[in-house]
Amino acid sequence: MNTVSALTIQQYLETAGRRIDEELDRLLPPADRFPPSIHVAMRYSVLAGGKRLRPILCLEAGRLLRGDERMLLRVGSALELIHTYSLIHDDLPALDNDDLRRGKPTSHRAFGESTAILAGDALLTLAFEILSCPGPPPAACKLRVIHEVAHAIGTDGGMIGGQVIDLQMAGREVDSQALEYLHSAKTGAFIRAAVRAGVLYAQGGEEDLARLTSYGEKIGLAFQIVDDLLDVLGTQESLGKTVGKDDRQHKATYPAVHGVEASQRMAAKLIVEACEVLEPYGERAGILQGIARYLLVRQN
Amino acid sequence: MNTVSALTIQQYLETAGRRIDEELDRLLPPADRFPPSIHVAMRYSVLAGGKRLRPILCLEAGRLLRGDERMLLRVGSALELIHTYSLIHDDLPALDNDDLRRGKPTSHRAFGESTAILAGDALLTLAFEILSCPGPPPAACKLRVIHEVAHAIGTDGGMIGGQVIDLQMAGREVDSQALEYLHSAKTGAFIRAAVRAGVLYAQGGEEDLARLTSYGEKIGLAFQIVDDLLDVLGTQESLGKTVGKDDRQHKATYPAVHGVEASQRMAAKLIVEACEVLEPYGERAGILQGIARYLLVRQN
Repeated sequence: MNTVSALTIQQYLETAGRRIDEELDRLLPPADRFPPSIHVAMRYSVLAGGKRLRPILCLEAGRLLRGDERMLLRVGSALELIHTYSLIHDDLPALDNDDLRRGKPTSHRAFGESTAILAGDALLTLAFEILSCPGPPPAACKLRVIHEVAHAIGTDGGMIGGQVIDLQMAGREVDSQALEYLHSAKTGAFIRAAVRAGVLYAQGGEEDLARLTSYGEKIGLAFQIVDDLLDVLGTQESLGKTVGKDDRQHKATYPAVHGVEASQRMAAKLIVEACEVLEPYGERAGILQGIARYLLVRQN
Repeated sequence: MNTVSALTIQQYLETAGRRIDEELDRLLPPADRFPPSIHVAMRYSVLAGGKRLRPILCLEAGRLLRGDERMLLRVGSALELIHTYSLIHDDLPALDNDDLRRGKPTSHRAFGESTAILAGDALLTLAFEILSCPGPPPAACKLRVIHEVAHAIGTDGGMIGGQVIDLQMAGREVDSQALEYLHSAKTGAFIRAAVRAGVLYAQGGEEDLARLTSYGEKIGLAFQIVDDLLDVLGTQESLGKTVGKDDRQHKATYPAVHGVEASQRMAAKLIVEACEVLEPYGERAGILQGIARYLLVRQN
């Protein structure tokens, strides 16, 4: 077992997050690029902070296999643009109707609904423009990442599919199987794809891909369970978004289906398993294992 | 000059349109794929008919250069998914607030706003999943098409940028320069990209690319001028959408800025030029030239 402490990991995550932020700032069109209103809105939501979990996982999965850091920062940041698009659209009045995100007014509250819809569309589009840029790694490798990412955020077991189910299940009785499908689709598939993107950009072998995929699946599910728990147990101040909303909207969540304590145990077990999967890499896996453990104790 | 008549072209377009429809039917997830509600909505909007202009241009540009028809049908159909996404989102209450599209209720009227937003997102995402599928042509060629398409539908001189300007200009005085920028971004860039995608999939040379790009730019602009004219002169029955809306919404249009007759002359001149660009290909360019002329006399 490695000994990277929670404090060290928190510092590491902050440093990595700043590097992602810098890369995002470079990748986004400047605020005064014509037409400025859309670029201001895109930058507002992307640069509002956030954990940068997907890019960090992509970066670290690739670094574990000695991938090129600059390329990994780039692909990871493209994935963060996709994540932000999904948040902007999820927050819209017709969907979750949220006023607050990352401690600031949501995009449609700040810029109006039409700009929010188009800013989300634009971030998704820009992500694919970035993922298809000329230059290394080989085109076949980039193409595979685009294909996997598009599938992971699509309707067939991917993010949009999960969002559809989430909206439909609100207010209904949900069993544990439906709940696991929902979370696997809504957040799991994309987190898994982020880890795999790092492996593919580093041109890792099939065994690396299998191990890191398993890691990604386990922490993806654990992340969502903890998210559900924080909605019950967290404070609005620490989360930067409205709390207790899942319950008021009768959303399908782990605490609602399994209870708080059982949910906590499930998340902890997944994290232990995720760390075990990476043991063949020895100390080099310390950061990814540390991130996994940190996800369990995070307060936002 | 070639002699493909308007009638022949209309028959050709109908046949090609049916082949595109069949390909779209194959590419879209079946209506009963879980979760069905989103797949029903995606199929509803895509399979509602339409001119299939972008896929047909892609197909014919590629066929001119002896590209593989099956591949061209596939990439062209992916572009039609993107076109449909843009229509669904443009029609939303927060944007153009349209009730009717291709003679049927718009997506949000038929399925509700949340499903319409997600169905648009899903079609855009699916298009990139299809464009990045394994198999021929070479990965570098597919990657270039993805990159160009993403740019053409983005904010920087592309479709979303045009939509932003369109919304902002409504009700304001617009000069001819701003109008040309608006239409070049909103429809021109994507039509140009569709033609180029056909050339790139057929692995045409730089000279082919330059000629067909020029053809694409000219017919793209002519197409939009005719679209503006039809909104003034057409009937709701033939168009399958609300007419006179541009005027009521004080949209920036060619007839509003230049008058009806001058707009007709501009469109006709562009079509003549587009046909001339393709003269080096002799009779083989007959279909693309016929399509160009047909765009001028179309009633919907």
